[in-house]
Formats: sequence, C-alpha cells, structure tokens
Amino acid sequence: MDNKKSKEEQSIDRRDFFRKTAAMSVTALAGTSLLSSNAMADDPAIMNHTAWGQKWGDPVTANLYGVPSAYEHNVTRRNTKLLASGNFRASIAVTPIHESQGIITPNGLFFSRSHGGTAHVDPNEYRLMIHGLVEKPIVLTLAQLKRYPSVTRTHFIECPANGGQEWRGPQFNSVQFAKGFMASAEWTGVYIKTILEDLGLKPEAQWMLAEGSDNSKMGRTVPVDKVLDDAMIVWGQNGEALRPEQGYPVRLLLPGWEGNLCVKWLRRLEFATEPWYCKEETSKYTDLKPTGKAIQHFYANEVNSTVVSPSPEIPWTDLEDGAVVEIEGLAWSGMGTITGVDLSFDGGKNYVEAKLKGLVLPKSWTRWSFMHTYKKGDRLLLTSRAMDDAGYIQPTIDEEVSIMGVEAVYHRNAVETWEVTKTGEVNHVQIRS
Amino acid sequence: MDNKKSKEEQSIDRRDFFRKTAAMSVTALAGTSLLSSNAMADDPAIMNHTAWGQKWGDPVTANLYGVPSAYEHNVTRRNTKLLASGNFRASIAVTPIHESQGIITPNGLFFSRSHGGTAHVDPNEYRLMIHGLVEKPIVLTLAQLKRYPSVTRTHFIECPANGGQEWRGPQFNSVQFAKGFMASAEWTGVYIKTILEDLGLKPEAQWMLAEGSDNSKMGRTVPVDKVLDDAMIVWGQNGEALRPEQGYPVRLLLPGWEGNLCVKWLRRLEFATEPWYCKEETSKYTDLKPTGKAIQHFYANEVNSTVVSPSPEIPWTDLEDGAVVEIEGLAWSGMGTITGVDLSFDGGKNYVEAKLKGLVLPKSWTRWSFMHTYKKGDRLLLTSRAMDDAGYIQPTIDEEVSIMGVEAVYHRNAVETWEVTKTGEVNHVQIRS
Repeated sequence: MDNKKSKEEQSIDRRDFFRKTAAMSVTALAGTSLLSSNAMADDPAIMNHTAWGQKWGDPVTANLYGVPSAYEHNVTRRNTKLLASGNFRASIAVTPIHESQGIITPNGLFFSRSHGGTAHVDPNEYRLMIHGLVEKPIVLTLAQLKRYPSVTRTHFIECPANGGQEWRGPQFNSVQFAKGFMASAEWTGVYIKTILEDLGLKPEAQWMLAEGSDNSKMGRTVPVDKVLDDAMIVWGQNGEALRPEQGYPVRLLLPGWEGNLCVKWLRRLEFATEPWYCKEETSKYTDLKPTGKAIQHFYANEVNSTVVSPSPEIPWTDLEDGAVVEIEGLAWSGMGTITGVDLSFDGGKNYVEAKLKGLVLPKSWTRWSFMHTYKKGDRLLLTSRAMDDAGYIQPTIDEEVSIMGVEAVYHRNAVETWEVTKTGEVNHVQIRS
Repeated sequence: MDNKKSKEEQSIDRRDFFRKTAAMSVTALAGTSLLSSNAMADDPAIMNHTAWGQKWGDPVTANLYGVPSAYEHNVTRRNTKLLASGNFRASIAVTPIHESQGIITPNGLFFSRSHGGTAHVDPNEYRLMIHGLVEKPIVLTLAQLKRYPSVTRTHFIECPANGGQEWRGPQFNSVQFAKGFMASAEWTGVYIKTILEDLGLKPEAQWMLAEGSDNSKMGRTVPVDKVLDDAMIVWGQNGEALRPEQGYPVRLLLPGWEGNLCVKWLRRLEFATEPWYCKEETSKYTDLKPTGKAIQHFYANEVNSTVVSPSPEIPWTDLEDGAVVEIEGLAWSGMGTITGVDLSFDGGKNYVEAKLKGLVLPKSWTRWSFMHTYKKGDRLLLTSRAMDDAGYIQPTIDEEVSIMGVEAVYHRNAVETWEVTKTGEVNHVQIRS
C-alpha cells in the first residue's frame, strides 16, 4: 500500500539520507545536463519574464465547475469509424490510458459505451422498480433509493471487447484504441443485498434481469449469487453524481464483470428462476468457439495487463543512451486482486518481476512499474503478464487462440507486446510461435 | 478497508441471507410505501413513456471530455463577497462537501485558493529550479521533471482558515462555507527526497523555500525534515494533469500541512540554513494568541471532523417519524490516520461511536456514518469528534478558545454542532459552556 510507509522508508533518517545522496545521476534520471547559474539567469521562466507571472490570473469565480488547462486539449476520449458500427450512438469512446495516472480515471475521460446514445434522464421523473420473486415489490424514487445505507468502493469497468479487435493481429497502433475500453473509479451506491434484506428475496430466485430506461432498453441477466455477493446500484462516481454517459442518475455495478452487464439508466430489476436470454446476451456478448458452439453465461473480465508507457503514443525517440526510464503499466482482474506482474524485454521468452505501485485493491486497476536503463539502438519487445489471487495468469496468444479460435470477440486477455524500434518508436505487434 | 471483505461479509451464504431477509422495513429505510401493481402500471418511468426512453441519445462523440448532467447545475464551488478580500482573485472557492461521496473530490469541485488569481502556465515554457544548499543545482523542464519515478497517494488539502470565521460564533449557516475550504484527491508526482538523492542535499540545509511563478509569487518556507519525509512535487490529480487553479502544471504537496504551503505554479525550491520569513508566513498564516504573541512555524492541519448529512444544505424536513436515516460525515487529520469518530446528539455531553466507511488512509479524508432512527419533533444537537493515531482528539470550543483566544484565524479544529430543529431544519450553532 503506497499510503503506508514501508519499513525501509521508516528507517531512513537524515543521516542515512545524506549517505545515499548522489547515488543516482541527474543526467540519467532527468535526462538533462546541469545548467550553470548563467543559464539560470537567462531563463525567462526563472527570471520572471513569463506572461503568466506578470498579470492577474482569473478570478476564482471564473469556473465554479472547473475544466482542464487548454494545453491539455489532446487528452480526450476517442472514437474511430472502425469502432462506430454505423453511427456514433451504438458506439464507444475510449479512455486515453497512456495519459492515466494512479488508479482513478477522471469522469470526463471515463470510457463510454452505449447501445442507443447517451440518455438525459430527469432525476425527478426517475423510478426504479424491483419486482418478480421478492416478497415486497417496490417502485423507488431517486431520493428513496439514496436513503439506503451507502458504500464506496474502487473498481474498474471494462468492456469485454477490450482488445477484441486483436485476435488476428494488431488493428490499432495505439494503446488507447487497443486497450482503452476500460477505466477505473470510486463508486458510491448501495449493495443490492442490502435492498433485498429489506424487500425479501424468495428462495427460488436464481436470476436477476437488469433493464435500462434509455431507448435501447439494454437488458442483461445476472446470477443471484453475484447479486448477493458484491453487486451494487450506484449513483456516485469519483465523489459526484454519475455522468450522463455513465447512466445518470443510476447504473448497475457488477464489480469485475463485463461492462455491458453494468446496465445504465437502470429502471428495473426482476428476479426469476430462469435466465432471460435477451438479445444482448445471445446474439452479442457470447464467444463463438472453433467448434461452432458459443460460450454463454461467462461474465468476469479475466486477469489482464498492458504497458502504457512506453506505447505507440509515448515513444522513446527522445531518450538518450544510458537514460534511466520508468516503464509503467496497468494490471487488473475481475476475479480478484493482482498479486504480481512480470515484464519481458524479448516478447515473452524471459520475464523479470515488476513492482506494484500504490493501492492494490480487488477488482481494481493496479499500477506497476519497472526502472530500466535505456540502451540506444536496442530493439525491445515489451510484454507484460499479470497474476491474480484467484490463481490465474495471463495466457500467451497461442494458448488463448488454441482454445478460443479467432472468432470470439470477447474476453481476450492474452499478453500484448509493444516493439520498441532501434530509433525508439513504439509499435503494436503480435508475437506468435 | 471497504474493498476487503470483512469476515462477517464472507460468512453470509445464501441460506444465511434468506434467514436475514425482511429484517429491515421498507417504509423505515427507503421512506416509502409499497406500490401496488396498478401504481406500477401507471408510472410513466416504468411504462416507458419518458422522453428519454423514446428517442436516440447523444452520440459518444458529443462530449469527448465529459461534463456533468445539466440537472446537477447547483453542485459547484462557491464564493461570497464575505470571503473575497476585496476581489475574487486573492480569494477562495469552496467545495460542496455536503454533496461529496467517498474520499475523492472531482477536480471540477476541488476547492481553490489563490493570492493573485488562477495563472495559465504554458507547459512548454515551464521551468523548475532547485538550488541553494544542494551539490548539483538544476533547472528542469516539465518533461525532465516527469522522468523521475512517480508515486501516487490519496491526501486531502485544507486551507488552515477552514472554519476560521467561526471563532466568535457561526458566520455561515452552511457546511459548504463553514467547512468546505478543503477537498481530497489522488495525487501523482515525485517525492522530493527522490530528487534530492539525485542532486545531493548538503548536510547544513535546514529549510526549503517554495516559490510560485504566478503574479503573487507565493513563498513559504518548509523544514527539511518534512521535505525528506513525504513532501511531493505533483503534476497529476485524480488521474489527469493538475487543473489550472491547482497549479498546472506543477504544485508542491506537503501531505496534511496547510494548503497555502502547497505552493502552486511552482517555479523554485531553494535550500538554506534559516527560514525566509516571507510575507505569507509572517503577516499571514500565523496565529495571534491572547498574550499578543503569534504562533509561527506550526504547519499541520490537526484532527478534525464534520457532519455533512444532515446539514443546513441537507435538512430533514421531509423525513417521516420512525424513518431510519444515515448520518454521514468526514474526518481528517494532517498528523496521521483517523482511528475513530464519536457522534453526539446533545451537543457534546454524551457520545456514541460512529462507523468508519471505506478506505481509511493517512492524511486523507475518512468517511464515517451512523444509522439513526428519526423521531419527528425531537430537537437534536449533532456534534462529531474525531481521533487520530498521533494521539489527538478534537477539542471543545471552550478548550480551544481558552488557549488560543478568538483572534487566531487559523488551525481551528474544535468540534462543530448542527442543530436539527423540531421541524427538521438544520442550523449551524455554537455550544459554549
């Protein structure tokens, strides 16, 4: 845990500190030469000749709801026609994970997938019906729903199609498009089990239908065991109301399971003895195997990882020979907690252990890093491989394809590889034996 | 930790669950009556007669950087002329903590205090100079700074004047204005000790000057022990670049210490043997005692807490007699980790123990709650009192005033009280013996 000091950190007193001082090299770490005091005196940013240092800034009332710096205008969600399925409503906008930091994605950049566009729901007209095999069926207003005792948890949401274009080989030379069908947030809402303690679930109930109130009426069926484990109805994301594209005012959250199951603009939960076999769980979100049969009722996003820096968006073309550079990535598992990440420089033949950074939480993004000394002219094949406490490890592409073939769009969690060329460009490649 | 299942949670299997079912009452918890199936059939939100259920939503490309629902337009930072010191540049915009959830404040709502307005810094022109008693003084570009190995940690930042209007009695009948000079975020940057290992701090260095590059040239001096403990230079906030009003591209972060020490638009760190005695640490940000002498060099925001719901902004006027309602609050300490929160219904005479909710991290917001059965017609005096692992507990107002008098603007951490009137309105009151 980053927020707890390690014993090693605690033991650094000032004497130890001065002993360690100068063990690193400025040129290697910051990639710069020391500047003379003359150079300092010439630097406008230091000598107060900057435009921003000589005039009033904006009043605090200028943006009572703040926005990013104009210099960050390139950091956005993105879409391409390749992902648009004919229009930009039944579509996706993906997260710039190469620009991500820590394990929180700001709400403005949280990936968005909808089947009929972003609905704008009036919270005063909003209703949630809970019915079927419950003792006391109910219709709740938003205010009534929020009266239940709330919980807050940090979880990723991932589209099961994340990386699903890549079965036959790299389609996007971009980590945002290849792996950005996901994001992570702090969610606030109520456990459905808390509501069911109130309403009384009938013992014969085995399945729950969740249905959206938007024009697409997204419907998915969830096993009751998951509902009674950690399923939530959420209204808060990163400390404020859900955004419209995340289902404002209320969505379902099934931690670690397919994003499309986390039904947005949620209007109805119904309990029954059998699954519903809705359109979006038969014609879609099933995996066609080489045998011609499809896998149904498999919901968890399995253990996965990616390098985010370097990446096609963050090349090493400016790195000098001998530079010390932090290789960073994300790991996640819908089945538990990340226990480790390995990193390979030769496309998966040999691995070294990477370091987990910051908070390590179940069914949450986990950030990892490895300090590397860059040798100019080397060609590298960077591959990461994550493990979780459910006992799983990411497969190779060969292993995954041998079981699933190349027609299954969903649940692709094989390792990914970035090629770092001799000149420091980074390309998405696929390593097969 | 909320993200770890308690033993109790783990032991709930389905059989246990059905046994517990119906132990709560719908009318008490959700504050509603059960609706008949006729009522369901009449409800437009259930029967799909809503405006948003019958038309296309927005394309995913409509907001590539997303914004809140228009229905949330009242959830903003706020300012009043009372806090504006003559203009809205040397001023503050405070966080709607009554609308907060979890321990992350979205960047758009993070409280903002500046001494010359919000500077708009060009990241390409940005420079950071580190000099004085270091072996290797340096000027870094932003890219060079970001080459250092990064860390991510969750911390609050609080203005030491939070609640400082209240020494003589309540000034604002509002939790946002009385206690919202703070917010909490996940910060990404580099420990200054990491940079100093590289540059070589000279053993005689005892103090560090931090100076901003905006027009106010905010300057504060920091003891080297804090610098070598957990001081950070940060460029990331909740997974994206700092916002302009938080010091884009770079600010200082001294976890748990006064917000004004966390210098924004940071341009310079200088190390020396003596403190600087800058304007903002002599004429301001010192505490005038009844003796006429002022306290200097006291930096930590001490253990503190507040009830956020109910509050003047969230009254109980709609609650029915017998309703079960969650009383929620925040606790925080700049000296360590929150170990407990007590809640009083009689203004501090008697206390019961509240429950800590979710992640409990050092120098971070900690959320707490207490389930309460509301009795219509009762008058309550809600007072919370937090404790930390540094061994401190919030004082009463009498205790604090007896030591500090009523002229000290800063570091007021005495308990606060909300009066819940017989009709459910909530007022900010002060309880003195």
